[in-house]
Amino acid sequence: MVNSMQHRPIQRALLSVSDKTGIVDFARNLQQRGVQLLSTGGTASLLRKHDIAVTDVSEHTGQPEIMDGRVKTLHPKIHGGILGRRDCDQQVMSEQDIAPIDMVVVNLYPFAKTVADPDCSHEDAVENIDIGGPTMVRAAAKNHRDVTILVNAEDYGRVIAEMDANDNSLTLDTRFDLAIKAFEHTAQYDGMIANYFGARLAEQTSKFPRTYNLQLQKKQDLRYGENSHQQAAFYVESETAEASVATAKQLQGKALSFNNIADTDAALECVKSFAEPACVIVKHANPCGVAIGDSLLDAYERAFKTDPTSAFGGIIAFNRELDAATAKAIVDRQFVEVIIAPVVSAQARDIVASKANVRLLECGQWSAQRPVSFDYKRVAGGLLVQDSDQGKIDRSDLKVVTKVQPDEAQLQDLLFCWKVAKFVKSNAIVYARDGMTIGVGAGQMSRVYSAKIAGIKAADENLEVTGSVMASDAFFPFRDGIDAAAAAGIKAIIQPGGSIRDDEIIAAADEHGIAMVFTGMRHFRH
Amino acid sequence: MVNSMQHRPIQRALLSVSDKTGIVDFARNLQQRGVQLLSTGGTASLLRKHDIAVTDVSEHTGQPEIMDGRVKTLHPKIHGGILGRRDCDQQVMSEQDIAPIDMVVVNLYPFAKTVADPDCSHEDAVENIDIGGPTMVRAAAKNHRDVTILVNAEDYGRVIAEMDANDNSLTLDTRFDLAIKAFEHTAQYDGMIANYFGARLAEQTSKFPRTYNLQLQKKQDLRYGENSHQQAAFYVESETAEASVATAKQLQGKALSFNNIADTDAALECVKSFAEPACVIVKHANPCGVAIGDSLLDAYERAFKTDPTSAFGGIIAFNRELDAATAKAIVDRQFVEVIIAPVVSAQARDIVASKANVRLLECGQWSAQRPVSFDYKRVAGGLLVQDSDQGKIDRSDLKVVTKVQPDEAQLQDLLFCWKVAKFVKSNAIVYARDGMTIGVGAGQMSRVYSAKIAGIKAADENLEVTGSVMASDAFFPFRDGIDAAAAAGIKAIIQPGGSIRDDEIIAAADEHGIAMVFTGMRHFRH
Repeated sequence: MVNSMQHRPIQRALLSVSDKTGIVDFARNLQQRGVQLLSTGGTASLLRKHDIAVTDVSEHTGQPEIMDGRVKTLHPKIHGGILGRRDCDQQVMSEQDIAPIDMVVVNLYPFAKTVADPDCSHEDAVENIDIGGPTMVRAAAKNHRDVTILVNAEDYGRVIAEMDANDNSLTLDTRFDLAIKAFEHTAQYDGMIANYFGARLAEQTSKFPRTYNLQLQKKQDLRYGENSHQQAAFYVESETAEASVATAKQLQGKALSFNNIADTDAALECVKSFAEPACVIVKHANPCGVAIGDSLLDAYERAFKTDPTSAFGGIIAFNRELDAATAKAIVDRQFVEVIIAPVVSAQARDIVASKANVRLLECGQWSAQRPVSFDYKRVAGGLLVQDSDQGKIDRSDLKVVTKVQPDEAQLQDLLFCWKVAKFVKSNAIVYARDGMTIGVGAGQMSRVYSAKIAGIKAADENLEVTGSVMASDAFFPFRDGIDAAAAAGIKAIIQPGGSIRDDEIIAAADEHGIAMVFTGMRHFRH
Repeated sequence: MVNSMQHRPIQRALLSVSDKTGIVDFARNLQQRGVQLLSTGGTASLLRKHDIAVTDVSEHTGQPEIMDGRVKTLHPKIHGGILGRRDCDQQVMSEQDIAPIDMVVVNLYPFAKTVADPDCSHEDAVENIDIGGPTMVRAAAKNHRDVTILVNAEDYGRVIAEMDANDNSLTLDTRFDLAIKAFEHTAQYDGMIANYFGARLAEQTSKFPRTYNLQLQKKQDLRYGENSHQQAAFYVESETAEASVATAKQLQGKALSFNNIADTDAALECVKSFAEPACVIVKHANPCGVAIGDSLLDAYERAFKTDPTSAFGGIIAFNRELDAATAKAIVDRQFVEVIIAPVVSAQARDIVASKANVRLLECGQWSAQRPVSFDYKRVAGGLLVQDSDQGKIDRSDLKVVTKVQPDEAQLQDLLFCWKVAKFVKSNAIVYARDGMTIGVGAGQMSRVYSAKIAGIKAADENLEVTGSVMASDAFFPFRDGIDAAAAAGIKAIIQPGGSIRDDEIIAAADEHGIAMVFTGMRHFRH
């Protein structure tokens, strides 16, 4: 039984959809319940083709569809039928011959898809802006106390089931839920329009629109934020472009925390940089151990060695299927918060199951070509929006600036080290050898301290620096960083170059017999 | 002269505004040009009160306003008049007796204001959702080739001026610009509705709505992002709540860079923590020197002493009017990227003018009560949303856990140091004495290294650690951090507490004769 406020048997429905998924079955089901169907355009044709009787909107309103469809539903008979309050507007509805419309099934062609077509002209884009559709969607959503609005084919099934259970009615909770979906739909639609045209204004000199409109879907509420006095939630993009922490499926373990998600993202995005089997261990937003190896196990063992202290309670990401041997090595050895891999083997899953708290995530395989996306940095009262850092270099981009040339092994290590430095907070200095980090100097306010820290950490873990290479995420402003590296035993350096003191810095490297290459590209990450 | 596509003399306008600013003068001006005015509701009454003749929409359509105004403009005569294409719909317009409407002046009552009223019920909120208004706004915006849409009183003046210059017409560029404003307006409107109701769904257990809808205004395009291969722009909130980097006015200097803005935000938000004259110097997102003082100059001199190397090229923020003496001390001594203060004295301005590149910002005075806001952390494919960290403690929150009690001077320094640690990237360790930072250990993957760095930096700058206090942004997992602090000469420690080894850590402090207080609150910041 539903109460009287909720008892609204559907007697008349208006159907006009861009996404025709499931609409025929849904309409037929409504028809079988004796619901009168109003429709228009392509939806009406499709339903008639399937022998479903529909009344044209123009017949219902007595007003012809005009201006190539620009004006068809914008009529008091339609909007009075949708907006009329069943408890107080009956009289005017009857006087004006307005029949109540109890259900509206309308969805909008995604504007983003329209403009994604390279052939889409300005006029095409404008013509694709729907006026009547959003009006019906919004009107029905406003009047959700009396009317049901459906904007998504995914909801047809639950609506039918609820009508079965409730004498052709829907509960107020369901109508409210669907109404919010409707406003989410129109907010996204107009946001896309504003973004698209807002980047095409006459005064625009960049691709960034005048207003930045964003809609994200909540994936989960979090227990708390970065700290326990902050509430938090995790939102994801509606069309998630690629395998990431946002798409990851949690196979077991405690609920992900705010910091877990942030650190898992850092680890996963870093491990995506490598073609070889690779492992990245992250703690407090920084890689504390990264290695490539002959196998995933080898990569993990070596990544762990960089900084076992920090690896305790860390986040571990892999770029291959997590296998049993690697899973066993982890759970036998260390406390770990999160393990993430594109795929997890059944055996590995069983092994990790022995540690019920460990969060095990499977994110799927990412594509080699990273999708274009924006990165955000929040400031009080505003947001910095930028292209995500997809800068990449390969061997051909490297410019050897010293008398000494790096040998083949050093070149490999320099490229490895550079990929790691990109994911270390600035100022970033990374020592590496044989495809393994030896010391990571992160997040310092002057570069020379990052270099010092990398050396101190290597020494503390008894890792041999002599013969290692070094990456710096930005140029050295002074020669002191090079001198410190030489003292530590560094034999080759990779850095962007571009300092006004480059000559002095190259001379310092030459003095120490160090090979140095310039990338021409900086990777600040704060 | 305007070309034929642009020549659209305004002959009929529809006015229906929530924000009545300037509407009387604007309508009168239109009337004097012979424009026929259609109006409705409160706008019509207001105009008539000012002896401006208007035709009621219901008279124009021949359809009474019904359902307490729910249905008045949703009529083919209105929407055909707005949407009709002047180059191909004339015939149908004439057949259907649809008079063209060349200008639509409609704005929507901000939904956020409706629901900000604590007395606003669910029904009030629903009733305040406008259906007719957004439809006219969107229809006119779609047909901007022929129709002008105004959603903001700020635009009346420029529209009048352009009509004066162009024989009662507007240029297509202006109509397009105004059309985008219209979609920005409706996108924001529906986004607010979706946010509000999306947090009130039956299944909701948190304040975070099912979709997160955000609209920001571009303040400026930036030369590039965090790195030169990333494009970027700076967006601000439409209703900026308080003085911040987003509200700051640049008085002189080169254009702000992405990193400038991020660092200025960090410096300014930190300096807001202090009641005394204070100075914060930030480099690479971390405070590298913070001090309070008897005067602003004193605070700057002491903040600079912490780490002169990092302060080079830093961002300097103050919490008082920047005076001449302080400005002079800065420009005489150091290379500085940005100086920001609530106010800059005329003399200080003249002094900084001698260094034309220095970016000098005046942000206005902030309020003591910080506004509620959300903080964002971007991850691939998603966004972490949390309350901004507004956690604060005062003396009464401190719990002394050691045998030794902190003395009054130490207590002052502990509270000072704690405020700084909140703005240092985690893991954060800060040494301080006499209201001045002595060493800042930032961004390390294990806490003991942050402690080491703070000590190394103090030693490198010949700052006396003995007698200083130490803050840790989170609890110590092991006693090693306490032992290191004792060895350095630290006499008092402030930290959240809460480790499973707190007993061991308290015992270590007791062993060293260190006073330790627990705050019960953590301040991770990554």
